[in-house]
Amino acid sequence: MKLYYAATSPFVRKCLVSAHELGLREHIELTPATAHPVNRDRALVAQNPLGQIPTLITAEGAALYDSRVICEYLNALGDGRLIPPSGPNSGPGPTRWTVLGEQALADGVMDAAILTRYETAVRPEGLRWNDWIVGQLDKVHCGLAQIERRAPHLGNRVDIGTISIACALGYLDFRFASLAWRGQQLATAAWFERFAKRDSMAATRPPAN
Amino acid sequence: MKLYYAATSPFVRKCLVSAHELGLREHIELTPATAHPVNRDRALVAQNPLGQIPTLITAEGAALYDSRVICEYLNALGDGRLIPPSGPNSGPGPTRWTVLGEQALADGVMDAAILTRYETAVRPEGLRWNDWIVGQLDKVHCGLAQIERRAPHLGNRVDIGTISIACALGYLDFRFASLAWRGQQLATAAWFERFAKRDSMAATRPPAN
Repeated sequence: MKLYYAATSPFVRKCLVSAHELGLREHIELTPATAHPVNRDRALVAQNPLGQIPTLITAEGAALYDSRVICEYLNALGDGRLIPPSGPNSGPGPTRWTVLGEQALADGVMDAAILTRYETAVRPEGLRWNDWIVGQLDKVHCGLAQIERRAPHLGNRVDIGTISIACALGYLDFRFASLAWRGQQLATAAWFERFAKRDSMAATRPPAN
Repeated sequence: MKLYYAATSPFVRKCLVSAHELGLREHIELTPATAHPVNRDRALVAQNPLGQIPTLITAEGAALYDSRVICEYLNALGDGRLIPPSGPNSGPGPTRWTVLGEQALADGVMDAAILTRYETAVRPEGLRWNDWIVGQLDKVHCGLAQIERRAPHLGNRVDIGTISIACALGYLDFRFASLAWRGQQLATAAWFERFAKRDSMAATRPPAN
């Protein structure tokens, strides 16, 4: 399989952490790409009209996107441990809806952070709109507060919910260190300190700024 | 169940069309909400920190989001006809990855269209960036071209892939009539003309502009 990727993308990281946890990492070859919203990467667009990274080319040559579809595909290729099946949940673990809901929450935080980044680092300075930045960062803050409420219950779970939350927090550390989210999110910080030590997380850390 | 909704949102429409097709529509009560990116709806944010519509409150009182999670939940509550299970695909229909990939494509087109709408209708005029609009509309156009390549194979399928594509096209008709997408997308136009006649689509048409 081939993954269009950038080391800075939290959505790519989610897929690579998932692949690593499923024992599939060695089957994925990385192809550098960019997902710039204005200067669109034509080699990537030829595979995925949305020009997103991650985009996965399967062993059969099909282009799969976006990150949620890729993670579910990898989960099905592997042993299925990252996303519980639907239907009655007999075990002690989280339900499918809990895990997918956490992924949606973390994806939403990442989306808002990336839109903030586009506003402050890509858009010409004279065209930036402070109210937009405030609105997107409010999404991030409200999302973090929700993660903090969940953090005491995350325990040692390793699934697409916790992986997504960890990738969102890692992206905030990478691009929004000034938010200093740990000051308000003590339970999340304690949980993330443990989770970030996993081999899958250490191997996918974004580059130094 | 209760759905935070606006009649103008294509992501809400995707959920309502799905509910209708699954025979679950009558079990969902609608609560009007707005998902303005700057003036965030606090009643909604209390249920979903991302402030998104759709947000579904289940019969058990849990808040589910975003639209993909809601549609999969409804599919599991119903008879499962909208999303094929993973695993070997023995039938003649599309695979899970085809259907989920089409949903991701259509969601990406809707996201790009909504970002364009925010830029041209919400952001103060002096702060608009033409390159951003061009980039987002290129996503829409490349997405439409991909839909056009798929259109001859969509047949009479009714699943989360075709529902998502139909909601994306309906949103373009609603907010971007000037794109006149039918001129370049003849197979898509023929398919959509049939699909849009379904009761589920007719019942969820956005209001006149």
